Amino acid sequence: MRALLLVAHGSRRTESNEEVRDLTEQLRGRAGGRFGWVGHAFLELAQPSIPEAVAEAAVAGAREVLVLPYFLAAGRHVVKDIPDEVAIALREHPEVSVRVAPYLGAMAGVSDLLLDTALAHSPQAG
Amino acid sequence: MRALLLVAHGSRRTESNEEVRDLTEQLRGRAGGRFGWVGHAFLELAQPSIPEAVAEAAVAGAREVLVLPYFLAAGRHVVKDIPDEVAIALREHPEVSVRVAPYLGAMAGVSDLLLDTALAHSPQAG
Repeated sequence: MRALLLVAHGSRRTESNEEVRDLTEQLRGRAGGRFGWVGHAFLELAQPSIPEAVAEAAVAGAREVLVLPYFLAAGRHVVKDIPDEVAIALREHPEVSVRVAPYLGAMAGVSDLLLDTALAHSPQAG
Repeated sequence: MRALLLVAHGSRRTESNEEVRDLTEQLRGRAGGRFGWVGHAFLELAQPSIPEAVAEAAVAGAREVLVLPYFLAAGRHVVKDIPDEVAIALREHPEVSVRVAPYLGAMAGVSDLLLDTALAHSPQAG
């Protein structure tokens, strides 16, 4: 079974972490049967961590986990911290494979999303 | 004429600021004639500021500026700093109107973008 794991930075603001949980709920609702487990993890300041979330997915039966980094730029968190946390998860759960997708800011559709949103909020420009 | 202004936080990492400039280039290429001016601004650590970018758009002939906040959560930057900077720009350029679109994390299509990306990177889940 395949799992989808949205990974965000984590914030002292509980509302920001709540936004990540709400987005995960949306993903879960839309994933249908294509991902058997959908969850989230944080790098800092909130739980669960990536290893904790991968453990939960593994217990649920996941054998492949796709990590979606919810980050805007290729900073240290994307380049080093997420791979480091993924490595820990892999050591603890060798039965699972983990793949990391591009981070949000590098996703092919982000400029389309921005432009579509701009047009929707500026109707006469459409 | 309408202008589109992508507003990011700004980073000490020049590569992160460069990512914002590259994304702005993509937006400019896709906007076609729908926005006569497309630019970017930063809240901190990089130039131009929102008032500087609005001034540039105004000189180019813009009378309406749509701000796209390139942020993931409704923290202080989205709730207070961007409106404060927009207010400064409006005082300096009363001939221009400014509207602020939802920030990226609150855009209606963000979960679709994430799921589409997940499916593209996990082909057997499709």
